[in-house]
Amino acid sequence: MILRPGATVGILGGGQLGRMLAMAALKIGLRCHIYAPEVEAPAYDAAHDCTIAAYEDEAALRKFAAGCELVTFEFENVPTATLAFLETLLPVRPNSRALARTQDRLTEKTFLRDLGLETAPFADVPDVGALARAVRDIGRPSILKTRRGGYDGKGQTMIREGSDLGAVHRALGAGPMILEGFVGFEREVSVIAARSLEGAVVSYDLCENEHERHILARTRVPARVSPALAPVARDLAERVLAGLDYVGVIGVELFVARSEDGEERLIVNEIAPRVHNSGHWTLEGAETSQFEQHMRAIAGWPLGSTTRRGVIEMRNLVGEEADDWRDILAEPDMSLHLYGKLHARPGRKMGHVTRVLRGA
Amino acid sequence: MILRPGATVGILGGGQLGRMLAMAALKIGLRCHIYAPEVEAPAYDAAHDCTIAAYEDEAALRKFAAGCELVTFEFENVPTATLAFLETLLPVRPNSRALARTQDRLTEKTFLRDLGLETAPFADVPDVGALARAVRDIGRPSILKTRRGGYDGKGQTMIREGSDLGAVHRALGAGPMILEGFVGFEREVSVIAARSLEGAVVSYDLCENEHERHILARTRVPARVSPALAPVARDLAERVLAGLDYVGVIGVELFVARSEDGEERLIVNEIAPRVHNSGHWTLEGAETSQFEQHMRAIAGWPLGSTTRRGVIEMRNLVGEEADDWRDILAEPDMSLHLYGKLHARPGRKMGHVTRVLRGA
Repeated sequence: MILRPGATVGILGGGQLGRMLAMAALKIGLRCHIYAPEVEAPAYDAAHDCTIAAYEDEAALRKFAAGCELVTFEFENVPTATLAFLETLLPVRPNSRALARTQDRLTEKTFLRDLGLETAPFADVPDVGALARAVRDIGRPSILKTRRGGYDGKGQTMIREGSDLGAVHRALGAGPMILEGFVGFEREVSVIAARSLEGAVVSYDLCENEHERHILARTRVPARVSPALAPVARDLAERVLAGLDYVGVIGVELFVARSEDGEERLIVNEIAPRVHNSGHWTLEGAETSQFEQHMRAIAGWPLGSTTRRGVIEMRNLVGEEADDWRDILAEPDMSLHLYGKLHARPGRKMGHVTRVLRGA
Repeated sequence: MILRPGATVGILGGGQLGRMLAMAALKIGLRCHIYAPEVEAPAYDAAHDCTIAAYEDEAALRKFAAGCELVTFEFENVPTATLAFLETLLPVRPNSRALARTQDRLTEKTFLRDLGLETAPFADVPDVGALARAVRDIGRPSILKTRRGGYDGKGQTMIREGSDLGAVHRALGAGPMILEGFVGFEREVSVIAARSLEGAVVSYDLCENEHERHILARTRVPARVSPALAPVARDLAERVLAGLDYVGVIGVELFVARSEDGEERLIVNEIAPRVHNSGHWTLEGAETSQFEQHMRAIAGWPLGSTTRRGVIEMRNLVGEEADDWRDILAEPDMSLHLYGKLHARPGRKMGHVTRVLRGA
């Protein structure tokens, strides 16, 4: 199903990603209907319609679906059952299986390994007994993560020499977990790619990411890695997208590790089945933003050019960093984005700043 | 009065200019409340709030003002009385005198002449008797225009040899008019400029405009004129902005004429006290778009860089031209904008397309 201009796209989730998706929709003549449980959310201001309801509220979902021509999501922790229910009513892009597979760290890692992609070594930890065996197999340091939920470093703990396995397991809620080996990496990078309804794939140049306290602090494009990695990243994104029968934009988080022979190689850390924070630079820095790209893909429209406009730096404004908005506005080469959040809390992403420098 | 992020700006007028202003507001964390009489309008989708009411409805205006921290307008035919009324309640930027002066072609031309700027010769035509005298003074061909209202070629008629003055006067409604001499020009250009609350002025590079059936068809930046005109245009814009005690973005439409000595010179045609169609290229083609620039100016924030990113072509999609949206999307170097208008009528601006080519 291909949309016409003027059609309404439903978006599950009301955060800044939904806000920027809705702004991209406005640019190309689409309307958005945001569905989210929060009373206040950044995306509502940019939407044609809003439904404030729980993801489990079938009556609200049914009414929402009746007012939309297709549905997408900006938040990867939407319950899979919500998407599966909506799929009985209208097209959902990307599909609910793609979301389900990436929502669970164990099925995600298994999927990646089955595609032949390198990941950190991992082991299923259904219970605390399995944890002791997994730590023996994978060693320390390693990282214990809940299979579901968690973002920006939540829901995970490092297992070090002397860690009390039982205590760590309890602190993470004693549910189903995965143990991941610690990967010694040189850089964190990501590839943002999109797949159209017909299966065409485009990808943006590799982004280099720096995190602070598990939150993305800065992205630099192009990543300072060997040019030989570019086709590797592109191919990897294509395999992930095709493997998920995906339509829309995806973010694939990668580690750059150096092999014993001195060659750089890519290890897949995580898939984000949505537009991605490390792709915000595309708003100024690429011919088509990741947000417009996602809307084009799910609408069944041609994908746009991913050509980069220069060397780009993107910095997140986290918590009180957004208080510097006026100084940022006064810098001639900085482009300020604020998400309309009324209250700055520590760790809360309030906006971002992009700087496009000339050159390649 | 300087706004804080999160503040609400009221915008009078609901067209595509209001839509793109509201989108720029979303980018920098401001909210918009659109006030317009139309039941359906492009700007509503991008706004936090909408009031659908007549410009003369004082109760509605009062309620609107109570929900905003300042007011601006995207439509120059808002009644001056509406702005003057709002000015008793909250800041209005640009101010109502600036609007009043530019709404009336006679006071506008007089203002420009008093600033020492060249305009077409003109004469006041209060009635049909004055028309005969004015035509004797100014000659034929000349253009008879209503003093108020009219855009895209509406409200004006060419007076040629043999024109029946009485019939032309009646056809234009027999109200107050102005007769303007016909200017032989080589090109139509425009300068988009902004003035901050503190009186700082920035301007974009001269835009070269082509009209078809009195509607802007294409803009090319930079204009193909002598580089010597750039400071002239900038100075001219500064004088107009200071003369109107203006805050916000203005569009000044100019003719490029060639003097007998072969030098190019600028003749002011018209002032648009708002963001301007010939400035739409700034969305992709400049470091700060005219829409963000206007919001920054009226918010009392620092103005942004007007640096151009290349050679730019902007084409309006008028009427059925917007039916080509899919072909345009498939062109890798074109950026499509659609205004969300559901019905294409001849002469109706449905969207625009921008192409940024490398180079100066």
